[in-house]
Amino acid sequence: MNQEARETQQEVVVGIARWLQPVTYADIPPKAIDLAKLFILDGIGVAVAALPEKIGKAVVRLVQYMGSGNATVIGAPTRVAPCDAAFANGALMHGLDFDDMSFGGHATTCILPAVVAALEEARASGRDILTAYSVGMEVFGRLALVAPADEMHELGWHPTGVFGLLASAAASAKALHLSERETADAISLVASFGCGLTRNFGSLAKPVHAGHAARSGLQAAVMAREGFGGIWTVLESEHGFGVAYMANKVNWGAFLSGLGNPWRITFRGPSIKQFPCCGANHRTIQALLNLRAAHSFDVQDIEKIEVRIHPRTRVILFHERPADGYQAKFSLPFNVAVTLLAGKPQIATYSDGMISNPTVLQLMDKVVVVADPDLEVSGSVVRICLPNGQVLERQEKVLHGSPDDPMSEDEVIAKFMDNAVPVLGRPRADALCAAILSLDKDGERFWQALDGCRHAVQ
Amino acid sequence: MNQEARETQQEVVVGIARWLQPVTYADIPPKAIDLAKLFILDGIGVAVAALPEKIGKAVVRLVQYMGSGNATVIGAPTRVAPCDAAFANGALMHGLDFDDMSFGGHATTCILPAVVAALEEARASGRDILTAYSVGMEVFGRLALVAPADEMHELGWHPTGVFGLLASAAASAKALHLSERETADAISLVASFGCGLTRNFGSLAKPVHAGHAARSGLQAAVMAREGFGGIWTVLESEHGFGVAYMANKVNWGAFLSGLGNPWRITFRGPSIKQFPCCGANHRTIQALLNLRAAHSFDVQDIEKIEVRIHPRTRVILFHERPADGYQAKFSLPFNVAVTLLAGKPQIATYSDGMISNPTVLQLMDKVVVVADPDLEVSGSVVRICLPNGQVLERQEKVLHGSPDDPMSEDEVIAKFMDNAVPVLGRPRADALCAAILSLDKDGERFWQALDGCRHAVQ
Repeated sequence: MNQEARETQQEVVVGIARWLQPVTYADIPPKAIDLAKLFILDGIGVAVAALPEKIGKAVVRLVQYMGSGNATVIGAPTRVAPCDAAFANGALMHGLDFDDMSFGGHATTCILPAVVAALEEARASGRDILTAYSVGMEVFGRLALVAPADEMHELGWHPTGVFGLLASAAASAKALHLSERETADAISLVASFGCGLTRNFGSLAKPVHAGHAARSGLQAAVMAREGFGGIWTVLESEHGFGVAYMANKVNWGAFLSGLGNPWRITFRGPSIKQFPCCGANHRTIQALLNLRAAHSFDVQDIEKIEVRIHPRTRVILFHERPADGYQAKFSLPFNVAVTLLAGKPQIATYSDGMISNPTVLQLMDKVVVVADPDLEVSGSVVRICLPNGQVLERQEKVLHGSPDDPMSEDEVIAKFMDNAVPVLGRPRADALCAAILSLDKDGERFWQALDGCRHAVQ
Repeated sequence: MNQEARETQQEVVVGIARWLQPVTYADIPPKAIDLAKLFILDGIGVAVAALPEKIGKAVVRLVQYMGSGNATVIGAPTRVAPCDAAFANGALMHGLDFDDMSFGGHATTCILPAVVAALEEARASGRDILTAYSVGMEVFGRLALVAPADEMHELGWHPTGVFGLLASAAASAKALHLSERETADAISLVASFGCGLTRNFGSLAKPVHAGHAARSGLQAAVMAREGFGGIWTVLESEHGFGVAYMANKVNWGAFLSGLGNPWRITFRGPSIKQFPCCGANHRTIQALLNLRAAHSFDVQDIEKIEVRIHPRTRVILFHERPADGYQAKFSLPFNVAVTLLAGKPQIATYSDGMISNPTVLQLMDKVVVVADPDLEVSGSVVRICLPNGQVLERQEKVLHGSPDDPMSEDEVIAKFMDNAVPVLGRPRADALCAAILSLDKDGERFWQALDGCRHAVQ
């Protein structure tokens, strides 16, 4: 509790509700809107890219078990109820682990599918989409600053799902114009729908964590409107949300006083991924790419590759020998080997065939992962040991696509096109890209472009 | 891990899958089947009774936001998709907190709605319903024996939702005849959909915990058939399910070796509730009813009522002054007062009007709840202090309806009729009762009776 909250005995969910109620599009700084459009573009692009993959096909098959309704699942011809669409689109968007890394987890994939599903039937304005999305990102981003995101993995929890629950409920409450009371009900209710075990990383449960958070938030908002709710002290109270998921190490006062002050998306905001695998591999991959570019050596000559990472990163990347292509996204030895052999990892890199490729397996055997508690949690030190004692060492601190070295709009568009064109074809991909980048001016164009994706996948 | 599991490195989810795969109706002892029919009868009766109440009306309104499908929500004219029906029926069945107390939580409400939704479209046999239900009850009941159910509330978690997830997934896997691999996938996947915070007790989130568990289990089973799954070591592994929800205090070996040995429903099985409120009040209520019957005193003369309960029960019954009628189900002072004033609590006792009744409030002020760690967790010692130092003390150890003093079939039928007749009318209630009690002989009769409930509620 911060000073004000302590004095007024304001519950945290009421604090969130009071903050988000008066927010309008005009309150969100132009820089935040520009960034939001890029993250939305990236999120939809990676969802489209997932469609031809194992996860995408499974999601589209799953749609047949959902009730029919009026909301769009990207790439599925049948429309479903909004909560189900949020679930399916969340699973797609996080399906390749190619979506933004944000605030200790993956924010867009938990929030955007809920917002789009909430607003589709009304074909709301693009500014309504941007406003609700920004509200959700703010809740996610501020939670990450006051909660022990890194430690949560050890406690069993995937921060994406946990932060995503509250963020998705807040965004949905904003999208549906809930009252202050209904918003507090929605957020306290959603706290009960816990979500996401770290130990399920490397299985298709992981993308579903995002879908579950997206659906649960929208569902809680809809339910709050119909009279459901939780206990308003559920977040901060003894035996409550903070205890269940975060060992009670949350500073709720700092959370509330930080909301929108400044907007978190503009301040150490999300990173756009260059590689379609778990972000915990990325510094290692980048270091290897840089060593490859800077030095001339034959991969066959490598005697050993030592990668030092923080013990907490090991809790995430626990698949030493992946059992399938998706699981390979969570295997540091695999990512080291394929990067050294073939350069920048692509979507096709994570195939069931690649994990049993003898050359890859041989090189994986030379990878030694060392847990080093003195590193920062996301740190990585790579050492390639060559004959005659030659050692190439590199430590990457900044990733391209991160707030410290952001991608340009053109680069984000290029990533989107790489993802979308092979699935949608050029005209539909162009239309979708243009619609998203003009969300601040036009909503209808976006709904039409989204509709255009439905029959795109054969 | 037990000896066998350690030797074979068998994952717990695989152990569950291997156990439930070969189970047939003939493997379940007749005594277990007879009990199962009574618990199903009771569960459906309390769901019907919820329909005219606040929770029931909210659930029926919620149905309009679900996609349309072929599965029945009790009392709702519109049909929805099976997973949504499981959600809605679970919320109804746990809606009045009048459903069975079982294995540290509420089992039937997490399992039966999933089984019925899974089997409705095929209009499966009653024996298929009983078999899948029994499998789910077994998983729930065995988990409760090896997990720290009482401590879980302090850790933040509602055991109903947590055990219910795995139980519902197991029951759904059985109902849908999943393969061993698909069953292991379903159970490992469902582990990620955590469920239910104790701190939301006293809000309409609590019945939703059961609905969420029911839906998540069925959803995981359907998803497993379409290629989704989790990591098979997710339950027992470091940073896994046992850590996230139960402080790692689970004996998985004992869990696996206990399955069906004997069937848990026949061995300290569920209790059928006499009073429509949180079970943590029941021993206190029964003690007061017995004191009222045995002694002649004027309630107005009472100077103090002291109730000693275990500190862990206080974590559950934390609403000293309830804010609405539903919350009153979790208020020990309220339950003491209304029992002394009006005798056995009824559904109508928990009304918004009653919590502001001045006579009730006056008597609530005389209730002193004392936490006593020397009591057993469900223990209660009641002392009524009268003028001139007279003290009436009573401690109830066995509740009628529990395995130690079970209700007769006639009593369970009478409870069902009390619940169902006011909502469905006598003919429909009779038909439903007869259909459930003949589930071992006939399935079609049950589906017809269920169908008959759809248009019953005006």
